[in-house]
Amino acid sequence: MLILMEPSASPDQVREILDLLEASGIRGQVNESPGSLSIVAPHASQALKPDRIEPMAGVRRVVPITSPFKLASADSATARTVVEVRGVPIGGGTLALAAGPCGVESRDQLFTIARYVAESGVKLLRAGAFKPRTSPYSFQGLGEEGLRLLEEVREEFGLGIVTEATEVETFDAVERSADMIQIGARNMQNFALLRRAGRSGKPVLLKRGPAATLEEWLYAAEYILGEGNRKVVLCERGIRTWSDHARNTLDVSVVPAAKALTHLPVMVDPSHATGRRDLVIPCGLAGVAAGADGLLVETHCHPEKALSDGPQALLPSDFMRLASLAQGVHRAIQAPTPAGLWM
Amino acid sequence: MLILMEPSASPDQVREILDLLEASGIRGQVNESPGSLSIVAPHASQALKPDRIEPMAGVRRVVPITSPFKLASADSATARTVVEVRGVPIGGGTLALAAGPCGVESRDQLFTIARYVAESGVKLLRAGAFKPRTSPYSFQGLGEEGLRLLEEVREEFGLGIVTEATEVETFDAVERSADMIQIGARNMQNFALLRRAGRSGKPVLLKRGPAATLEEWLYAAEYILGEGNRKVVLCERGIRTWSDHARNTLDVSVVPAAKALTHLPVMVDPSHATGRRDLVIPCGLAGVAAGADGLLVETHCHPEKALSDGPQALLPSDFMRLASLAQGVHRAIQAPTPAGLWM
Amino acid sequence: MLILMEPSASPDQVREILDLLEASGIRGQVNESPGSLSIVAPHASQALKPDRIEPMAGVRRVVPITSPFKLASADSATARTVVEVRGVPIGGGTLALAAGPCGVESRDQLFTIARYVAESGVKLLRAGAFKPRTSPYSFQGLGEEGLRLLEEVREEFGLGIVTEATEVETFDAVERSADMIQIGARNMQNFALLRRAGRSGKPVLLKRGPAATLEEWLYAAEYILGEGNRKVVLCERGIRTWSDHARNTLDVSVVPAAKALTHLPVMVDPSHATGRRDLVIPCGLAGVAAGADGLLVETHCHPEKALSDGPQALLPSDFMRLASLAQGVHRAIQAPTPAGLWM
Amino acid sequence: MLILMEPSASPDQVREILDLLEASGIRGQVNESPGSLSIVAPHASQALKPDRIEPMAGVRRVVPITSPFKLASADSATARTVVEVRGVPIGGGTLALAAGPCGVESRDQLFTIARYVAESGVKLLRAGAFKPRTSPYSFQGLGEEGLRLLEEVREEFGLGIVTEATEVETFDAVERSADMIQIGARNMQNFALLRRAGRSGKPVLLKRGPAATLEEWLYAAEYILGEGNRKVVLCERGIRTWSDHARNTLDVSVVPAAKALTHLPVMVDPSHATGRRDLVIPCGLAGVAAGADGLLVETHCHPEKALSDGPQALLPSDFMRLASLAQGVHRAIQAPTPAGLWM
Repeated sequence: MLILMEPSASPDQVREILDLLEASGIRGQVNESPGSLSIVAPHASQALKPDRIEPMAGVRRVVPITSPFKLASADSATARTVVEVRGVPIGGGTLALAAGPCGVESRDQLFTIARYVAESGVKLLRAGAFKPRTSPYSFQGLGEEGLRLLEEVREEFGLGIVTEATEVETFDAVERSADMIQIGARNMQNFALLRRAGRSGKPVLLKRGPAATLEEWLYAAEYILGEGNRKVVLCERGIRTWSDHARNTLDVSVVPAAKALTHLPVMVDPSHATGRRDLVIPCGLAGVAAGADGLLVETHCHPEKALSDGPQALLPSDFMRLASLAQGVHRAIQAPTPAGLWM
Repeated sequence: MLILMEPSASPDQVREILDLLEASGIRGQVNESPGSLSIVAPHASQALKPDRIEPMAGVRRVVPITSPFKLASADSATARTVVEVRGVPIGGGTLALAAGPCGVESRDQLFTIARYVAESGVKLLRAGAFKPRTSPYSFQGLGEEGLRLLEEVREEFGLGIVTEATEVETFDAVERSADMIQIGARNMQNFALLRRAGRSGKPVLLKRGPAATLEEWLYAAEYILGEGNRKVVLCERGIRTWSDHARNTLDVSVVPAAKALTHLPVMVDPSHATGRRDLVIPCGLAGVAAGADGLLVETHCHPEKALSDGPQALLPSDFMRLASLAQGVHRAIQAPTPAGLWM
Repeated sequence: MLILMEPSASPDQVREILDLLEASGIRGQVNESPGSLSIVAPHASQALKPDRIEPMAGVRRVVPITSPFKLASADSATARTVVEVRGVPIGGGTLALAAGPCGVESRDQLFTIARYVAESGVKLLRAGAFKPRTSPYSFQGLGEEGLRLLEEVREEFGLGIVTEATEVETFDAVERSADMIQIGARNMQNFALLRRAGRSGKPVLLKRGPAATLEEWLYAAEYILGEGNRKVVLCERGIRTWSDHARNTLDVSVVPAAKALTHLPVMVDPSHATGRRDLVIPCGLAGVAAGADGLLVETHCHPEKALSDGPQALLPSDFMRLASLAQGVHRAIQAPTPAGLWM
Repeated sequence: MLILMEPSASPDQVREILDLLEASGIRGQVNESPGSLSIVAPHASQALKPDRIEPMAGVRRVVPITSPFKLASADSATARTVVEVRGVPIGGGTLALAAGPCGVESRDQLFTIARYVAESGVKLLRAGAFKPRTSPYSFQGLGEEGLRLLEEVREEFGLGIVTEATEVETFDAVERSADMIQIGARNMQNFALLRRAGRSGKPVLLKRGPAATLEEWLYAAEYILGEGNRKVVLCERGIRTWSDHARNTLDVSVVPAAKALTHLPVMVDPSHATGRRDLVIPCGLAGVAAGADGLLVETHCHPEKALSDGPQALLPSDFMRLASLAQGVHRAIQAPTPAGLWM
């Protein structure tokens, strides 16, 4: 259930409710935003009737959450979530862009890319230090050394760092270095990893698994939210289908479909979604037009030499073009509908 | 092979080449556009060497077509095709919109919808008189009576009529009434129907089959082109996948992927692609952002009473909103890339 | 509704009911099998109450058909259908095998194959005279000449002929020559063709479309049944998925799933389902183990020279092996469960 | 490369080769089976030429491994692998059956099921103590308590225990209790977990991910093999497709396709593959007919009360029937092909 509090409710009043919930074995979560205060209590209605709680001091109203995703559900929030990553808001009507190489390969590679990313005005750098790879014989990332380089880049260019945590064992290290922790598509149902991410104070970017339904994706988010970390951003990165002109099929309709069910922001990764450089810009723009709160794109100064995913990385000039056009599309879909007609 | 002629080549010079091709059992097709004259001869290089043809009068150059889609291939054309439907260009940098109900249900229904479609400035009406239906017990369309109503609507509102031909048997009737003949997704590999459409002088809208690869779709277009009808427009309408939040999965990346391989225009049908009204606008805009030359959308004044596909039909006000926003997105992606940065 | 008659009901009593149905616009279908007589009347319960019909002479009982497939539904029959093709029963506990080349290519090719097929004891020959092909530039079959050769083969070897009708235009010719008319996967929703097949007196083999659900497949059968032809056999031939080790994915569970919903026999085509010779035998046996009433397999004496689908055709010796093992598996699954244990 | 040794080669001769490989940074793996001795050295040919090794004492021949799965590849072994689980061979021409409830729910439930499983002659019990669940609110298994119960069951009934390890954190506990450790479908690309399983001495059952290609599955096995554990059994459990009559689509052709590429045994899980009790027996038999080395099935005495996956669990009597029929089918496909004909 969702317990809407009076914005003026006191900490003690909140405490009292949390204690009551806890007595029934339920961990309530407090959400506070300007002018709004609420407590989400998953499955509380099985143990407590609303009329047990509604009369309590500071309570305005109790609302049932009918969705199976108690914490991710749009029903459970009084406003859409905005996740801040080193000062950059994701959600809330702005468009966020995170760009960079698939993996950190060397100091030189990383700094060259970070420089033009920063110069373009983009504020978030994405790059993997730990790389989950299908084959044990493929480049697995620079690991801790890569994290050091990412920290240097943040220092040098003021970029927020988005990087992947691939396992519980090395999560601490990634957590220390990252501004936003990515959970990759293959790990979307690695529940131990999700729970660990839920115990982190850092924002989490949760990629959709290549064969995950929207429902399963939201349940995965629920694992993170359930541990207390509410800074979750969803990221569509293409699904596995038989359609063979691209590496994956960008499921663009999941963006509005997800936003209808959850209060979490949704990003799109057109690079992994297509695997083909020439499709990245049109698909990135499609994601923005469909309502995505941001894009995650791969760019590389020498894609032909990239140690992973070269064929999908944008060249610097194309990256600039995408960054510019994406802003245009984002503005276009927010235009007030003119009385005007279709000409 | 593609035989590029001097723009000034005479009809006799063209004739001579066609005769030579015919002597080898090859039907050459002449393409003429302002300042450009060429002949496409599928598989001619198996019978004739370029240096047999290149010296002939009026010939500028002979180019091999390496694509398996000899006529649909971008290699086979000197410019992208623009298909005109009752004065409305599809392709060539403009954005076309065709809107209307799934099926013609009654005079009243059709005229009400046609009126607001026309008032919005949209010039093409889509509506089926013959409806292919999964179940033999579902509404199968008004047939010839529906065609009569469509003709009346054209007369009354000046709208171009896009309507489906479902079988060879009734093709003549549809052809007489339609300004553009739709081949539905289920018929994408109905080769007899494709060949019949290829012998028509009317533009053809070829929907992608729900499980058709890009390659198979272009081969289907090749069946039509091979009979001499070059007025073919492709239409992506969602593919069948396991992703279950929408009826189909809009494969938005197929738009740029198709445009890379073929000179034909590509439209997107976000209504069938999603089957959910709330996803139609974002997905329509995504299609435009990905570079589609137009949209095909369902709109109905009383979707809840529609005899088919009601849940996906836009209400009049939403339709107006889509029409307006789509233009904005179309303009946005054509903006010259500013020197400006991402802010 | 399903109207169960007394087995002793007179033709006049049956006629009276059909007339009553007709007066409500319903075409009833009479099913007669030893000791059983019934009338299926699709959607009759919308117009007529059971207690209007139950008191009529010769009527034993009226049963509603809740399935949307009124005629294909297992509810609508008092026994599973057995379809006879030139004396070979399909369904009813036996295992049928139809084998032959993908397409008729020449007299020599056809006779060589037919000879060893006949010598193996198999009674049905499958081969296409009309071939639906993805590309207009691929071999399209010998057409009428191929039908002549098939007739000769029947004459010479006493084999029943299974061959495909690809369009309404050439259906008559195929119908004259064939003992069983195949509707190919791409035509599963070619409703004009289905209706034409429904007006034929010949048995029909209805292949499942590569992206058709079980429901859509049964609706397609319903189109044929609705025209009065009850001799329909379903054939699973692999579906389109992202799994890429084979051309299609044999959906073996559809065999028992279909048999739970319909009274029609179900065959399996392991050749098209896999596209790889080395997978045909294991997948054919899997189909039999899952309860298929028969197999449709491609065999060719020189697969490397076949004009279509060579890589999936079995060599004569492998074909013999499949024929033998399939019988063994068929017997094994019909064994009475021994009291005995798993050792 | 694969280094085939003389069967009589001495330990010192083997040691010498391993040292040479190690000097080039390669970890060689020794495979010994009766009459055969070999060393697999992944990617060794990049560092060492065959003619550097072939002259060494005890070496018979050096063969390149062209497959990308160096250790899983059929090329890398001189015989198919047989994995023994508490005395029960998986692979090698026998048919193994592991049966039990989805999850351990209580002592009573487990013992009742174990009793009839053991009485049927089946030697392996499958049951999860740790359950990975899509929703954090679903039953997650009894954990360590479940492992205790499984140990009791082994003690009482002499059954080998197959149970799932869901994360690195609890792997040690599972490893201590299990006779075979299952890696579930959702964890097929949990590389940390795979590596941990590779450092175990216990046999590993590696389920195919719901959207994993055969290639990705074999790479996952390669992660385990690469750490030194060669006791790996693959298990097909259905893939995610749009086909909606069953929960997943049993990809039966992957059984022979996998066996063509790898020396590892392959099992089939018809319970998860279908999710419908009435499809489990036909699909289990289909798996055996396709060449599976064993089945993993769910059985429950009160499926309607099961805390997870009840609808797919076989009743005791049906389980007995499957066990019996599966043996019959297994024998049928191993019959020598009779000279006899198809009758």
